[in-house]
Amino acid sequence: MSTFVKNAWYVAAWSSEVGRHLLSRTILGEQVVLYRCEDGTPAALVDRCPHKLAPLSLGELKGDHVQCGYHGMTFDGSGVCVRIPGQQNIPPTARARSFPLIEKYNAVWIWMGDPELADTTTVIDVPHYGDAGWGLVDGQYLHFKTNYLNITDNLVDPAHTSYVHKKTIGNAAGEDVGVKVEQGDSHVLAWRWINDAPPVPLVATMANFAGKVDRWQYYYLHLPSTSYVDFGSIDAGLEPTEANKDGGFRSYSFNFLTPETESTTHYFWLHLRNYHPDDALVSDDVARLMTLTFEEDAVLLDYVQREQERTGVREYTRLGIDNAPARIRKMIERLQAKEAVSPAVHVLHPVSGATQPSTV
Amino acid sequence: MSTFVKNAWYVAAWSSEVGRHLLSRTILGEQVVLYRCEDGTPAALVDRCPHKLAPLSLGELKGDHVQCGYHGMTFDGSGVCVRIPGQQNIPPTARARSFPLIEKYNAVWIWMGDPELADTTTVIDVPHYGDAGWGLVDGQYLHFKTNYLNITDNLVDPAHTSYVHKKTIGNAAGEDVGVKVEQGDSHVLAWRWINDAPPVPLVATMANFAGKVDRWQYYYLHLPSTSYVDFGSIDAGLEPTEANKDGGFRSYSFNFLTPETESTTHYFWLHLRNYHPDDALVSDDVARLMTLTFEEDAVLLDYVQREQERTGVREYTRLGIDNAPARIRKMIERLQAKEAVSPAVHVLHPVSGATQPSTV
Amino acid sequence: MSTFVKNAWYVAAWSSEVGRHLLSRTILGEQVVLYRCEDGTPAALVDRCPHKLAPLSLGELKGDHVQCGYHGMTFDGSGVCVRIPGQQNIPPTARARSFPLIEKYNAVWIWMGDPELADTTTVIDVPHYGDAGWGLVDGQYLHFKTNYLNITDNLVDPAHTSYVHKKTIGNAAGEDVGVKVEQGDSHVLAWRWINDAPPVPLVATMANFAGKVDRWQYYYLHLPSTSYVDFGSIDAGLEPTEANKDGGFRSYSFNFLTPETESTTHYFWLHLRNYHPDDALVSDDVARLMTLTFEEDAVLLDYVQREQERTGVREYTRLGIDNAPARIRKMIERLQAKEAVSPAVHVLHPVSGATQPSTV
Repeated sequence: MSTFVKNAWYVAAWSSEVGRHLLSRTILGEQVVLYRCEDGTPAALVDRCPHKLAPLSLGELKGDHVQCGYHGMTFDGSGVCVRIPGQQNIPPTARARSFPLIEKYNAVWIWMGDPELADTTTVIDVPHYGDAGWGLVDGQYLHFKTNYLNITDNLVDPAHTSYVHKKTIGNAAGEDVGVKVEQGDSHVLAWRWINDAPPVPLVATMANFAGKVDRWQYYYLHLPSTSYVDFGSIDAGLEPTEANKDGGFRSYSFNFLTPETESTTHYFWLHLRNYHPDDALVSDDVARLMTLTFEEDAVLLDYVQREQERTGVREYTRLGIDNAPARIRKMIERLQAKEAVSPAVHVLHPVSGATQPSTV
Repeated sequence: MSTFVKNAWYVAAWSSEVGRHLLSRTILGEQVVLYRCEDGTPAALVDRCPHKLAPLSLGELKGDHVQCGYHGMTFDGSGVCVRIPGQQNIPPTARARSFPLIEKYNAVWIWMGDPELADTTTVIDVPHYGDAGWGLVDGQYLHFKTNYLNITDNLVDPAHTSYVHKKTIGNAAGEDVGVKVEQGDSHVLAWRWINDAPPVPLVATMANFAGKVDRWQYYYLHLPSTSYVDFGSIDAGLEPTEANKDGGFRSYSFNFLTPETESTTHYFWLHLRNYHPDDALVSDDVARLMTLTFEEDAVLLDYVQREQERTGVREYTRLGIDNAPARIRKMIERLQAKEAVSPAVHVLHPVSGATQPSTV
Repeated sequence: MSTFVKNAWYVAAWSSEVGRHLLSRTILGEQVVLYRCEDGTPAALVDRCPHKLAPLSLGELKGDHVQCGYHGMTFDGSGVCVRIPGQQNIPPTARARSFPLIEKYNAVWIWMGDPELADTTTVIDVPHYGDAGWGLVDGQYLHFKTNYLNITDNLVDPAHTSYVHKKTIGNAAGEDVGVKVEQGDSHVLAWRWINDAPPVPLVATMANFAGKVDRWQYYYLHLPSTSYVDFGSIDAGLEPTEANKDGGFRSYSFNFLTPETESTTHYFWLHLRNYHPDDALVSDDVARLMTLTFEEDAVLLDYVQREQERTGVREYTRLGIDNAPARIRKMIERLQAKEAVSPAVHVLHPVSGATQPSTV
């Protein structure tokens, strides 16, 4: 059973990956070919010629069109077939599905569901993006060998940082601090403050706190799988106003999860910080330390995925910290149920099966 | 569902591969062990001891017999068990299936179906084989990761050469030239002439045409999967008589497809040419360029196979150039239906299942 | 269908492998984590946190407890949860299964079935273990890619040594010598004498027989999968009393098979000999030659396993030498039937499925 939500914007690629060449990437189980038209507009088609299923990405980009490398069938950026070599008429079945795209925050976002519902205003807002005084690390990517919901579990679970990430963003001070949860129409927030504690290793490296700190972790998850974490530390005892927080050590970590298959996930991420915003060496350190952190998740969740597949089970016991993850999974289930009753996407009917001689 | 036709001759190996050792090869999904008797006659048995399924090819060739490496059961070239160490009686179930073979054109041909139907006169005729004035390249082999019918599709499809093989045997001049089809009882021919056009790269390399040429492509496919292509060029405007064609640039490319499994195929090929027939360097060039050409098919059809398996679909739209491939697939389907009503091959009944404790 | 017998002692690891760290090993299809408590007692838990299925072996050993590396849930050596960070109450589902262990013969034995049936007196007796005058090679291990019953087949089959092991423990003299079989309540013995024959290669290397020898092979298999082989040679014609056998060349080869999965097996072995008992170089030679011998089985049985899986068949014909293997498989079948009617092991019920959004 699929866990995918189709009617949503997903990062398909960083802008720098999409150019005057054919890029193939699997998204929500579908192979997609991405390229940029001569005027710079990105385009995305299903990466499969409707004739004999050759990947279009093995063909050639001719102007704004894609020419299949097998028999030269040619499609425009909307998937309309504009040429079939050797014949005049173009049958209605000779078309490739195209996908709505929008380019924002240096990324190309794709809509895999019903194109009529693709509202570009619903791409998540990234605060401070491009602002002076805020250092940016973007263009970052990891490949996770796990279902995306195992990752969203972690992204509304501040508690796991005390164990999984004690080399960077967690430490023992948080072990017994409970988590609070708030739910909106399309998001869940899990948060806690860990007060009067030593700074975590990443903060100790980057900042010069004289003594103990109050540390906050606000984990937001916007459905289906866009995460951002408001994370920071101030001197212990200081009043936690927004101004004080902006004056302390603060970062926003954005994680854009794009399901690749049911058991693998593209993990695009960017990171905004208020410390040493223009220092390229600090940017390098942030990239390195956050990559280390996310790889700790990746290793663990690879094992978890394999054990889920082997046993057919996801959990034998539920804890208090599972409140937010459980909400997310229930909200995803509702979105899927809604999509199931109004199937959005037109499907081409095949002429013939794959493994049988043709009957036509 | 199987796509195999069993009652047919397939190349099992080049003659040079079969000698005084045990060669294991999978053919039509069956593991076969090939060897040569002391008098030079080739023999083929199922590569599986009927006792405990050890591969006979792990055993020893003793004179004209194969001795299993597990318990020493010994079989002659017809599969009759001639010895069971430690016991006198040889039960009727102690035999290995053997397969009819014929050696011709430097290849060992095998018959995987009903031995009584194995008529050696039905091996395809290779014209000019061994003739003076015709250069020969043989002993060639490629392994394709695709069902053999995806390859036969290409071998009655001159149109794909304009796109897939434009480095060697195709060029843009052929893009919009239609294909004609003729059908016989057991073959299909797809052909076209591309007139008044520049020679294709391979011809430009090998021949010295002063100007444009008329080029022919005749793709014959004999059921189930023996192909030959009559391919050549003459000066543009010259009358296309057989004499003029033999006086121009002409080659016969023979492709012998032997299904290995439903998703992989042995591709044996040989090539005859009327140009520089005795020049070994030209032979090397032909081997290299045709290997390059067939590898272009192999790469593409590997992708096509994987997408067919993933989607369960073979095509979403059908074009005019699919006429010949569709005929082949329908003819194969009829051959299979015919084989299904008269099951040819004796099957041994197992004594016990694989994964259960024995019940005997 | 499973071929495992659960109510039995299996070697989980050599004693030297189990220490103050977390060792993960799959046994009878279950992942187990092994470690040693501070007082030296070994402990074994299912290697899977009941919360989100993270492998406990990725966590930390804290005193006698295992702390999960995901959220810090902590279990004692009996599987009782002693801590859940961030919450006070410990739900009854928060426990990990533990397994009875016993340490004997330098090995840690595990009981995967009903703990109430785990009678430590039923571990097999190893005669001469630790006795002066008997050389010991232990701590040996091979990994077989085959179902354990394919190995037990060989371990009550002296006949295969004439073919598979003619480099070490077999030779042509045994080819036509029949095998006798005796059956007890929980064991089968297959045996033969090969008289007035040249010594086998291993014996020729290790001993100084002047001429021909009488050789015995006694293959004992104790259910489900503990084997020992009494193997030796005396001067041809000498009366085969126990005293004469102990005065000749004699060894006991113990093989402890622990099923890993249905298609792979842990092969632990030790070897006792009455020749050069204190010579470390001879011990090295024995280790090398027996490893060579067992690897010959491993290669063959890997092929056999794959062909069994491919065909769904185990044998097409049965020979006289299959008497003992067939008895073992029938006895195993009876043990399994007995276990099936009295299901021994308590199973935790999952809170939610693996691939669906949570419904809680």
